[in-house]
Amino acid sequence: MLGRLYPGQDCSAARTLEVVGERWSLLIVRDAMFSGMTRFTEFQRSLGIAPNVLARRLDEFVAAGIFEPRSGRHGGHTEYLLTRKGRDLRPVVVALTRWGDRWAAPDGRPVTYVHEGCGGLVTLATACTRCGDLTPADGVGTRSARDAGPGGPA
Amino acid sequence: MLGRLYPGQDCSAARTLEVVGERWSLLIVRDAMFSGMTRFTEFQRSLGIAPNVLARRLDEFVAAGIFEPRSGRHGGHTEYLLTRKGRDLRPVVVALTRWGDRWAAPDGRPVTYVHEGCGGLVTLATACTRCGDLTPADGVGTRSARDAGPGGPA
Repeated sequence: MLGRLYPGQDCSAARTLEVVGERWSLLIVRDAMFSGMTRFTEFQRSLGIAPNVLARRLDEFVAAGIFEPRSGRHGGHTEYLLTRKGRDLRPVVVALTRWGDRWAAPDGRPVTYVHEGCGGLVTLATACTRCGDLTPADGVGTRSARDAGPGGPA
Repeated sequence: MLGRLYPGQDCSAARTLEVVGERWSLLIVRDAMFSGMTRFTEFQRSLGIAPNVLARRLDEFVAAGIFEPRSGRHGGHTEYLLTRKGRDLRPVVVALTRWGDRWAAPDGRPVTYVHEGCGGLVTLATACTRCGDLTPADGVGTRSARDAGPGGPA
């Protein structure tokens, strides 16, 4: 299991950080997701991290079902393919990127995300199922999804 | 400066992780953002972390412009208020939550996010500016935003 647990937190964000919150983890996912990387050497070249750290992250991701290993066709090296569970992290990486584009990119955003089907730019938005798009000024709160049960507050 | 740097990465997601990628950081933001917490003791009670760790995180967040401190009205204790830069992390927390709801919540999602204006459920979606909503099956790639310049690929 991963070292970064939040046992006291009944929270899906905390659960997700337990799986992808280690240093480098989300950058490995990023490289697989948007650059099509599958091989150990590709990730290592992109990230410049110690091989033992990368090996540990990939092993943890395989154990968590984020990547599945496939015996390699290219020179026999194992390939690591994102599963559906792994691909579902796309909004996380896009959300991180959007924030960095806005608040930590003094030279402008390094890359834009593009829909491969049509070349259109990819955006991310929070929306209200009743009102439509939300602005940052719109307040968002939480409601327990467990206590309400049938007949709970609408 | 924060300890978790990715100096070789020209990537907005990496820049964001440098600011919010430390253990506990995004859970502090979560508590401020969705539960309205402002005080050291509130965060500590919610998270159960060592006071020195919490103090360091809050100091780093103030230095990074995520929170701004305000001399407290309640018993004189300092309050920590999310700035616009901090509130802009909302999609990051929501995206993490959605993934955990789907993939790491065997007992069902703990909470739902609710638009305070109308009570509607809050969703998060990636969309293409040409096609509309994207499904997980839609491929998304990257395009350099720096090299293209005027007259670059459309």
